[in-house]
Amino acid sequence: MSIKVNYNNMMQRVLGEHGLTDQQLAQSADLCLHAHQVVEQNRGKGMQGWMDSPYNQQDVVARIKEVAKRIQNECETFVVLGIGGSALGPIAVFNALKHLYYNELPRSVRKAPKFYVLDNVDPERISALLDVIDLNTTIFNVITKSGATSETMSQYLVVMDMLNKKFGRKAREHVIATTSESRGNLIKLATEEGYETFYIPDGVGGRFSELCPVGLLPAAVVGIDIEEMLRGAREMDQLCQNNTSIDKNPALAMALLQHLSIKQGKNVSVMMPYADSLKYVADWYCQLWGESLGKEKDVDGNIVNVGQTPLKCLGATDQHILIQLFNEGPYDKVITFLEVANYRTDIFIPAGCDKVPDVNFLCNNTMGTLLSNELYATKYALTKRGRSNFTITLDKVDEYHIGALLYMLQMQTAYIGVMLNINAYNQPGVEGGKNAVYALFGRKGYEAFAEEMKNAPQDVDKYTV
Amino acid sequence: MSIKVNYNNMMQRVLGEHGLTDQQLAQSADLCLHAHQVVEQNRGKGMQGWMDSPYNQQDVVARIKEVAKRIQNECETFVVLGIGGSALGPIAVFNALKHLYYNELPRSVRKAPKFYVLDNVDPERISALLDVIDLNTTIFNVITKSGATSETMSQYLVVMDMLNKKFGRKAREHVIATTSESRGNLIKLATEEGYETFYIPDGVGGRFSELCPVGLLPAAVVGIDIEEMLRGAREMDQLCQNNTSIDKNPALAMALLQHLSIKQGKNVSVMMPYADSLKYVADWYCQLWGESLGKEKDVDGNIVNVGQTPLKCLGATDQHILIQLFNEGPYDKVITFLEVANYRTDIFIPAGCDKVPDVNFLCNNTMGTLLSNELYATKYALTKRGRSNFTITLDKVDEYHIGALLYMLQMQTAYIGVMLNINAYNQPGVEGGKNAVYALFGRKGYEAFAEEMKNAPQDVDKYTV
Repeated sequence: MSIKVNYNNMMQRVLGEHGLTDQQLAQSADLCLHAHQVVEQNRGKGMQGWMDSPYNQQDVVARIKEVAKRIQNECETFVVLGIGGSALGPIAVFNALKHLYYNELPRSVRKAPKFYVLDNVDPERISALLDVIDLNTTIFNVITKSGATSETMSQYLVVMDMLNKKFGRKAREHVIATTSESRGNLIKLATEEGYETFYIPDGVGGRFSELCPVGLLPAAVVGIDIEEMLRGAREMDQLCQNNTSIDKNPALAMALLQHLSIKQGKNVSVMMPYADSLKYVADWYCQLWGESLGKEKDVDGNIVNVGQTPLKCLGATDQHILIQLFNEGPYDKVITFLEVANYRTDIFIPAGCDKVPDVNFLCNNTMGTLLSNELYATKYALTKRGRSNFTITLDKVDEYHIGALLYMLQMQTAYIGVMLNINAYNQPGVEGGKNAVYALFGRKGYEAFAEEMKNAPQDVDKYTV
Repeated sequence: MSIKVNYNNMMQRVLGEHGLTDQQLAQSADLCLHAHQVVEQNRGKGMQGWMDSPYNQQDVVARIKEVAKRIQNECETFVVLGIGGSALGPIAVFNALKHLYYNELPRSVRKAPKFYVLDNVDPERISALLDVIDLNTTIFNVITKSGATSETMSQYLVVMDMLNKKFGRKAREHVIATTSESRGNLIKLATEEGYETFYIPDGVGGRFSELCPVGLLPAAVVGIDIEEMLRGAREMDQLCQNNTSIDKNPALAMALLQHLSIKQGKNVSVMMPYADSLKYVADWYCQLWGESLGKEKDVDGNIVNVGQTPLKCLGATDQHILIQLFNEGPYDKVITFLEVANYRTDIFIPAGCDKVPDVNFLCNNTMGTLLSNELYATKYALTKRGRSNFTITLDKVDEYHIGALLYMLQMQTAYIGVMLNINAYNQPGVEGGKNAVYALFGRKGYEAFAEEMKNAPQDVDKYTV
């Protein structure tokens, strides 16, 4: 496995008073063992179905590859309709592994359809997308497990209406559904209409779904080797499964570091890749971490109001945006750097500023060296100021390492869920907003809620400027 | 002014124990008066030169419009080389006011060059950009006040080398410099080479520079009405200048709300627009807020380690990503919603799911209504759970309102700087990293720093997994 985690800069020996001690790590051995045991005991059960994803998808992968090939041959545009976990994984993997201006390349270079993800209901966004695509050669991949996601289903209604008007009975050829096999609305519609359909396993929640058809189909369509992604996940799973100590299990080590940091009052978790290609992996991580850990109650029903705020950054860009705060603000953050040992290309910085010492020192180096040095320098400066940080290093950005990385972060989340004694797989806190939407639309059964909202002291002129 | 701030949901009467009281607001009247006075006393002085931007740019605006027109006629592509404040403003305004897939539109619809901002030194990003642009018809706008920004100047070196090889003496026609008139490296190079040059006033720092040529030139090039932007800023300035009470001055009200929230321990400031067009205004805000407020020392030299962590979100998308955490996690956040009263277009959600009650309630409404209802519902749910939030409502997204909005957020930052007794305009915390980069590159004068770094206990195998 060529993913390494270095957490030297979390330790008191280097960091000073804000760091962790060897003793703290040693005292946590039982906690780690417990977290490992609980996660393994539930492997494949309940909402831990995602742990099977690296192993049980031979048939579905074969069908995805077949369908993807057909789409590549027949279509010019592939649009994902999805939100949250149904959008973030596809976006992250696409940006990591394809050309950074993919949609602007000629078809002969792309060798696959243009790729869009519609993950909001902003009418301006939808209207703008319709301006640049041709329905005749577009396939829409509707992704929602329950088929009750208001945003995705309203997009579906809009798109289907256009497709029906334009293509009549052939409209269905422009739609692929990715949804639950056993329950929900979309599977009913898909069966009735005869859409090509892929299934999201019951035990796979949105934020753990990138390595099932939710993520694999879009990836395959743009020409990403999904078997290599799954191989990376599988090898990471083996590493985690077979090691109960933080010296061998990187996901367990990261979970413990974050757990101890939360205890220290560090309630912000920064994910900062030093590679444009990994920018959206940080977005994906934000949902995984924020939604899994942000909980009012622990599993015993105690009020805990726990959860780190995940913050996505991009090196070196965000050095000019947030490093001032990281270096001088409150000691409330843990920074996870994502380092790439080998960029896929490099650019030489030629001479040309002999008279300007502020610039001349850069000459005859490469952009890759500059970026690596900026990461090293940033870590150095933060560490010197006692700011907790650790580094995940990928040998390079390819299918194998992306699969391994995403899986490792999912395992970290699973472990810390046990350490915090919370349910990392539910999201009860989103129900209030959903119900309020239903009430506002006058949905049947939500009359009492609508009445409550009407009487709430929401909008008072006194507090308006 | 059709920008409103409603902070009802910050108040104890609505929010319960986590809210603020009328008494707290009343007791802060003197603090507000003081903040207003200090900001006004320093208007146009020191680093508050940005307060002159709405008033003193008639000549520069005329020249920008002239140059922009020439670029529109002669060029196919306009690339900003800049980072931090030199990138975030141009990106935010471009995304707010132009088509959301602008670069993919035909030239006949765009009526202006394609637009790119290169704000990182990732070799893969630069290489990818070079794949999709044609140097023959590209203009590069190099933006750096000091001319010592390593990232921007290394990009400049790479680009100039290519241009010189391709165009010889005519290379300079492909470059526009935006920099300090009086000092720094870029002005020397620009004068020597004869670049078209625009000046960044001494008293305008990077994160306060969108309304000077840094932002105005790129905006004008893509066809944005910069005079309307400045008119919006001017009217907002008048409103702020002439009102010392939070009942009349929205920037002062917001500054006080955040100040009192920081005192309550709320160290995360969320900016959450409900419009894809405003997504990058949240990015811009993150630098403004994070870099201005994140300070180790107050102006008297006391160690304070203050500063809210700014978090950018997008509604409704991020409801599926972070609302779980906002509703159930720690009470450590203040959420600023950015609401748009009138979207520039809307989309009808047709019937089509009669049998599915989970979806059917959406039919015969519009996407705009759905998005507005989601915002209202999210506010309602958060408020019910005692989560502090207030809402900025723009009548619509146009040049006038964007100018007013950005200026209002700058004024909020200026006011809270005084309230926190910090210098909102410096960034001493970024020096450590810069010096470490110099040392790593063996720059003359940094030998001692290099020696220090070599001896630091950075990389220890023991803490590597």
